[in-house]
Amino acid sequence: MSDKLTLGVAARLSTYLRILIQSRKQGIESISSQEISEHANVNPTQVRRDLSSFGKFGKRGVGYRVEYLIAQIQDILHSGGTHNIALVGAGHLGSAIAASSIFQDHGFRIAALFDSDPARIGQTAGDLAVEDSATIAARCRDLGVILGVLAVPPASAQGAADQLVDGGVKILFNYTETLLSLPDDVTVHTINPAEEMLYALYFHLT
Amino acid sequence: MSDKLTLGVAARLSTYLRILIQSRKQGIESISSQEISEHANVNPTQVRRDLSSFGKFGKRGVGYRVEYLIAQIQDILHSGGTHNIALVGAGHLGSAIAASSIFQDHGFRIAALFDSDPARIGQTAGDLAVEDSATIAARCRDLGVILGVLAVPPASAQGAADQLVDGGVKILFNYTETLLSLPDDVTVHTINPAEEMLYALYFHLT
Repeated sequence: MSDKLTLGVAARLSTYLRILIQSRKQGIESISSQEISEHANVNPTQVRRDLSSFGKFGKRGVGYRVEYLIAQIQDILHSGGTHNIALVGAGHLGSAIAASSIFQDHGFRIAALFDSDPARIGQTAGDLAVEDSATIAARCRDLGVILGVLAVPPASAQGAADQLVDGGVKILFNYTETLLSLPDDVTVHTINPAEEMLYALYFHLT
Repeated sequence: MSDKLTLGVAARLSTYLRILIQSRKQGIESISSQEISEHANVNPTQVRRDLSSFGKFGKRGVGYRVEYLIAQIQDILHSGGTHNIALVGAGHLGSAIAASSIFQDHGFRIAALFDSDPARIGQTAGDLAVEDSATIAARCRDLGVILGVLAVPPASAQGAADQLVDGGVKILFNYTETLLSLPDDVTVHTINPAEEMLYALYFHLT
């Protein structure tokens, strides 16, 4: 596989990988395309086609070995390593993110947590000490961070994003609803459950 | 438009609607397909094609009127009304969700908030009093809730999901990583930023 994956394939493989990693965590050793399909909201034929195009992973009637399939998909997605994240915002949402094992399970390490509130700086959330937002750019450069997560109030989002980008961040996960203006080489992913609800509701109503 | 939208079109229209609603909130009255394209990570030709298939919304060089386009897309997505949500979990994440205006901006009203921790029941988060999780099913039936949000610890996810489904919930937003076993007529959307990060990173690295 030297060809670049299409957006759709890469998105589905990321979904399968998330399901497989969670299955492993729940002690599940093998999984069928039907089970992957149900958890992924993707039809089983598509699941089998996506996985078969990378070689023979599964056996009919036996299913896929979870551990092996994780390794294969991580190889295809180049996601086997560990990547540092900078998290900005140590309020309710930032604290929930810092305390969650979701990132860690997928090879993402929250390397630094920032807040601009003096009352929060120096406190801990998860295993992290809250650092001063004024140091975002310098710290991101030192840590080689390319992924930033914004869990700040909407009015602080653009400023925090600018500092992350100054520090070399190229991929931003924006939990605020603020529309950001950033350089063309920076990709912003907005995490907005309401958008996914609109979509889910459409298929429920029609 | 009596035909059902494809998954891709419905997903993109939900994204455009999220961007338009936020634009209106930021006081923006007109928007170009180029601007929608940048915020949506969708190419401008695709944006124009998606919007043109529902009639002439925009004028070349002038852009789309935000207010008008919101009304049109809401009509297409049947999303103009208000829909009740039940939120389970009043910890950091649940509190962040309850305090956010993201849902409300899109016509979703958090009608009830539940937790099983006696220390939290009766407390408030956002404008909501925390109710006892033991009442989930009955309250969901009373309120006519079809959308449930799980913001509970992973080990509580299946139990909370079962209670929501007992109460008539058909669409679940699962913020935990737990893989849920639920009836076929219930759709689960898993909100996992790590999955989207895997995907974003792939396109950054290749």
